Amino acid sequence: MKLLSKTLEGIKPINQETMSEAIKHLDSLVKPIGSLGTLELLAAQLAGITGEISSSFEKKCTVVMAADNGIHEEGVSACPQEITAAQTINMTKGLTGICVLSKHANADIAIVDIGVKGDLNTAGIINKKISHGTKNIAKEPAMTREQAIQAVETGIEAVGELVSQGYKLFGTGEMGICNTSTSSAVLMALTGISAEQVVGKGAGLTDADYENKKRVIERALDINRPDQNDVLDVLAKVGGYDIAGMAGCFLAAAYYRVPIVIDGFISVVAALTAYKMNPLVREYMIASHQSEEIGYKHAMNILKLEPMLNLHMRLGEGTGCPLAFHIIEASQAVIKNMATFEQAAINDDFLIDIR
Amino acid sequence: MKLLSKTLEGIKPINQETMSEAIKHLDSLVKPIGSLGTLELLAAQLAGITGEISSSFEKKCTVVMAADNGIHEEGVSACPQEITAAQTINMTKGLTGICVLSKHANADIAIVDIGVKGDLNTAGIINKKISHGTKNIAKEPAMTREQAIQAVETGIEAVGELVSQGYKLFGTGEMGICNTSTSSAVLMALTGISAEQVVGKGAGLTDADYENKKRVIERALDINRPDQNDVLDVLAKVGGYDIAGMAGCFLAAAYYRVPIVIDGFISVVAALTAYKMNPLVREYMIASHQSEEIGYKHAMNILKLEPMLNLHMRLGEGTGCPLAFHIIEASQAVIKNMATFEQAAINDDFLIDIR
Repeated sequence: MKLLSKTLEGIKPINQETMSEAIKHLDSLVKPIGSLGTLELLAAQLAGITGEISSSFEKKCTVVMAADNGIHEEGVSACPQEITAAQTINMTKGLTGICVLSKHANADIAIVDIGVKGDLNTAGIINKKISHGTKNIAKEPAMTREQAIQAVETGIEAVGELVSQGYKLFGTGEMGICNTSTSSAVLMALTGISAEQVVGKGAGLTDADYENKKRVIERALDINRPDQNDVLDVLAKVGGYDIAGMAGCFLAAAYYRVPIVIDGFISVVAALTAYKMNPLVREYMIASHQSEEIGYKHAMNILKLEPMLNLHMRLGEGTGCPLAFHIIEASQAVIKNMATFEQAAINDDFLIDIR
Repeated sequence: MKLLSKTLEGIKPINQETMSEAIKHLDSLVKPIGSLGTLELLAAQLAGITGEISSSFEKKCTVVMAADNGIHEEGVSACPQEITAAQTINMTKGLTGICVLSKHANADIAIVDIGVKGDLNTAGIINKKISHGTKNIAKEPAMTREQAIQAVETGIEAVGELVSQGYKLFGTGEMGICNTSTSSAVLMALTGISAEQVVGKGAGLTDADYENKKRVIERALDINRPDQNDVLDVLAKVGGYDIAGMAGCFLAAAYYRVPIVIDGFISVVAALTAYKMNPLVREYMIASHQSEEIGYKHAMNILKLEPMLNLHMRLGEGTGCPLAFHIIEASQAVIKNMATFEQAAINDDFLIDIR
């Protein structure tokens, strides 16, 4: 709890002064004011986060939190639970979506076993296992409050360690069969939005399975009665280690003043829990892609963020993050390398007119 | 006309067989079927275009058509006309938006002077000037039918030349003050949609100027009465050299079986004119970003395409293309480098279930 408290207290707003300077510079570039849209907003936000007008994000990393969920025994997923462990191991071999997209973006991944069922013992996986998966939230709390705090702090530590290694831009990913169910439960608990509006079909559910998924998640909320105003209670009772760990990543990014990218549904729910712990965290977040999961937009609306990419993706793993990294870096190319009107020797009459 | 006819006749559908093979391979990768959304659709489309399951797009280029528009004298733009020449020259120096975003994407640009007012005589600009800008469409046709054909053929030749140099992926850009006006006129002529729905404010117009812009474009249509069913007539009477040149780029891409990216409003109107000349062209097109210009979505709806990026951009120059290149190449990383279920040694029970 000490690390969590220290982190929450250490989060400060982004630097408005540097942000203003960045905007002033962006407005001096050879283009109509604001015509590069989100690229300009990103450049301004990144200046505010880092305190530098422009940055190099050569070292960048998506942190993948891998964990199992006890709710699997309720038949809410079409996938066998062993897929979590299998895909986590596959990530160490560069075989999965997040691996190939990260490599394409010249980015790294950090794979954290925060609660996978079974012993992985595989090089390339950071072993922070809290337990062998959570309990079945349709019957009892997923974890204790202490375990929830431990999971959040695991995320804080993971990002802290990577910051100390020189990483300057982060993504958030996960691997955990049934984590759309736990994310839905957390989102419903925090917002009161109904299962019909939040619960998606996930990967390959039949219509009957889908109905069952919604009823099981409702039951989880009925049985556990998480306190809407106590995020840790919500995470402990109906969440998962992965969501809690990702929440910690968001908090740490704000604490260390580094930008952090939201992937899809699970990631945005984790972002929301972090935001509920300290609303300033939001200023450090960047949304990547519009997830196909129906709950995504509700969480995004509360955060008042907007995704840059519309790719109809619903894979998870953090796959939206490396794609967003490229755009984030493009914003730095703009602010660093575009000429000002002055440099471009377009005379002042033009300068006034075009802007 | 010979080159245009030959090109139109030489355009064939994309290769359905290779596309099917690509889809089959994509479905065998370690992810729920279709969960990488547009990345998978892109990979399938690219396979159909190229006839190869996967490709390397190392050499890629955005063709920038630069031209002036006689309608400038009607006060439809806040910018002095000289900006066209100045920014075209700035492109040769790497100073503008398309330059820095292309460099960031490891892509090239080809700058074609297809009708800039004044002599540029600058290294790095391909001189294909048809005349020193078009005539004022609010008073007379922009150009002759012969000039329209010459402009389209200039685009065809430009892409043909770049294909012979080994370029395998194309973008379409432009530089031409007042080309949102000419694009609006072309779109209105082709679709019958009203000025209110099509004409945007462009860069920095006052409300009064904006009203004037709409009235001037309506007048251009009234005076010239372009034939809705004759694209060349529309281009000649109310278009611009840049739009016609870009239309040629789209036709050539389909002819040479290389993918070509649509940028924003002017680009999508050019794409639409190419589509009206031969609907098969559409299969070779990839939409990049959702332009802020209000006419964009009308043209996109007719083409039944969907942009991947939502960045609120309205700069033009082709700036959406290099950003899309990264995503296009990401689709190739997926199809080339993700493991199949078999390779990832996830057993067959899982394989059936997860998909």
